[in-house]
Amino acid sequence: MDFKLEHTDKSSKARAGKIVTDHGEISTPIFMPVGTVGSVKGVSHQDLEREVNAQIILGNTYHLYLRPGLGVLEAAGGLHKFSSWDRPILTDSGGYQVFSLAENRKLTREGASFRSHIDGSKHMFTPEYAVDIQRIIGADIIMAFDECPPGTAEFDYAKKSLDLTQHWLERCIKRFNETEPKYGYSQTLFPIVQGCVYPDLRRRAAEHIANLPSEGIAIGGLSVGEPAEVMYEMVSVVNEILPKDKPRYLMGVGTPENILENIALGVDMFDCVMPTRNGRNGMLFTSEGIINIRNVKWKDDFSPIDPNGLTFVDKRYSKAYLRHLFISAEMLGPQVASIHNLGFYLWLVAEARKHILQDDFMQWKDVMVKKLSKRL
Amino acid sequence: MDFKLEHTDKSSKARAGKIVTDHGEISTPIFMPVGTVGSVKGVSHQDLEREVNAQIILGNTYHLYLRPGLGVLEAAGGLHKFSSWDRPILTDSGGYQVFSLAENRKLTREGASFRSHIDGSKHMFTPEYAVDIQRIIGADIIMAFDECPPGTAEFDYAKKSLDLTQHWLERCIKRFNETEPKYGYSQTLFPIVQGCVYPDLRRRAAEHIANLPSEGIAIGGLSVGEPAEVMYEMVSVVNEILPKDKPRYLMGVGTPENILENIALGVDMFDCVMPTRNGRNGMLFTSEGIINIRNVKWKDDFSPIDPNGLTFVDKRYSKAYLRHLFISAEMLGPQVASIHNLGFYLWLVAEARKHILQDDFMQWKDVMVKKLSKRL
Repeated sequence: MDFKLEHTDKSSKARAGKIVTDHGEISTPIFMPVGTVGSVKGVSHQDLEREVNAQIILGNTYHLYLRPGLGVLEAAGGLHKFSSWDRPILTDSGGYQVFSLAENRKLTREGASFRSHIDGSKHMFTPEYAVDIQRIIGADIIMAFDECPPGTAEFDYAKKSLDLTQHWLERCIKRFNETEPKYGYSQTLFPIVQGCVYPDLRRRAAEHIANLPSEGIAIGGLSVGEPAEVMYEMVSVVNEILPKDKPRYLMGVGTPENILENIALGVDMFDCVMPTRNGRNGMLFTSEGIINIRNVKWKDDFSPIDPNGLTFVDKRYSKAYLRHLFISAEMLGPQVASIHNLGFYLWLVAEARKHILQDDFMQWKDVMVKKLSKRL
Repeated sequence: MDFKLEHTDKSSKARAGKIVTDHGEISTPIFMPVGTVGSVKGVSHQDLEREVNAQIILGNTYHLYLRPGLGVLEAAGGLHKFSSWDRPILTDSGGYQVFSLAENRKLTREGASFRSHIDGSKHMFTPEYAVDIQRIIGADIIMAFDECPPGTAEFDYAKKSLDLTQHWLERCIKRFNETEPKYGYSQTLFPIVQGCVYPDLRRRAAEHIANLPSEGIAIGGLSVGEPAEVMYEMVSVVNEILPKDKPRYLMGVGTPENILENIALGVDMFDCVMPTRNGRNGMLFTSEGIINIRNVKWKDDFSPIDPNGLTFVDKRYSKAYLRHLFISAEMLGPQVASIHNLGFYLWLVAEARKHILQDDFMQWKDVMVKKLSKRL
């Protein structure tokens, strides 16, 4: 992987860059749609490419490990071939899902044992195994195995957790360096800065990782229950320390507003289930504000879903029709809302990039942030 | 509406023709995807046009009347505008759904009163109102209001039912002739041949309708529980009587095999929920036979879903990946299967047409029918 920092906004820390992987280029800042088990829920690959313009998607190691499982993934030649997706893929390490989804979790210095939330079967992830699994999945960008404590964790717990994460990180790096990609293209390992909501721990984690020879760096353990202001403070603390020549990936964030604020703080990559999950529930993000499409006010509003939207659904379907699909529990409703929301997120980061390159990002951002959270 | 009979197969009654409506042309024989409430379940309009190549879709009057309701449909300028579908639409009359879905049904010579299956509200459909509703929905082809008795109905019941259907038909025609289309394009009313599984009743119904000045004729009340051989017999009886210069629409049929056999008997138009409903359950129709995609045998079969298929899903996705989507309960599974199945049905009728025009339909049909019901 290669990263070129193209420009930094003159009045903020917002950055425009280019990531090059063996599966193609990614313009940053970028939003990555989440394809949990190798499918972005409700959106075909063709619509992801042509309508949403997704440049990279995310897969979840925990889910893929359980289904379809490593045997099928390896026989297919990795997740790209299995899911017929030729553009870049990033996988998380499985840690977050083990702690949020799996049952009978038990954490030791060795790793995390758990039972599958699907069939109760017993498994154990270690840092080494998390790397091995991600070698088999074959994502372009893979993540170190970490513990992600809740946003409300006490300092003592957070400190011990960070100790463990740092120990695991060293084992991940060792395993990564000892192993080779399986499918003839490069993979790169991002370490993850943890440290909960404690600036001292975040600084310590960032300094440790800044000195490692990785090609990119993730910031984890945020947007897990803490106030947005605390998230921004932690990102600021961390980004002051992280090297400028590596892309920074803020995991699991967030609302359109969160994304713009974090771009202003120098974050380059984002992922979140919000556009698809909220879309499936009838919540649309637009450049003018948020729409609850089930609201009776849209019943006979025959104007397009989003006249400024770039996907075919935005101009083709009316608000009244989309509301009707949701009220009638038609599958097409969640599909349309997911395409719209992902298209909007990708539009938002592309606009951000444009304004960074024009050096007027902050003015644009301040106007947008006011609009984005308005309820229409 | 205009119908041109282009060719009749030399060794069967199979016909190739062209229907012209104000929303475009339809090559027959044709299959019409079912868009119950104005959406073909799980398939975007773009995929219907570009991938499935749907030439006409069907809407259900009962469902559309209840949701979004006539007020919204009329304010939108009809179902075409409401659902942003520019190609032809056909609507049924609501009768079939009143008898299969609604609650507290009560049938009189005047019409059918019922309670909504959604909210229990009370309604009454008369032949006149069924025409009025379909004027508001604005489909290109609309249906007469009829009673559709079960396939197991006794002769006496079937005879009385046919008397009622004929009485209702006269009232439908009267109302249709007294009213105008609302949106500036033509509508045409198809009468429906009923008569259950009784050749005498079918003949009587066909003779009655053959003498009416409609532009097309529907055959209803089949594929409702009777054996396929009985359905074919009834269609033969009816088609001997119906005029050759009008398209014949066999309502609610059926499997790929049913469709080919009825094309051989001179049917021109079909609709059925089977490709989408069975698709959502993981059953795929292909030119080599039927696939239950949940079967473990596809677990590591990385060959395309259907190498002969015309839609993008057929070649892009593997059987193993589609199985994984179904096993993991991903929305994309039913979506992909629906696109595939509809694409297959449209391919099947297009191939049938080609072989009719080449005068080798029967040879092709006999080979295909053997393959179509094979379990792969």
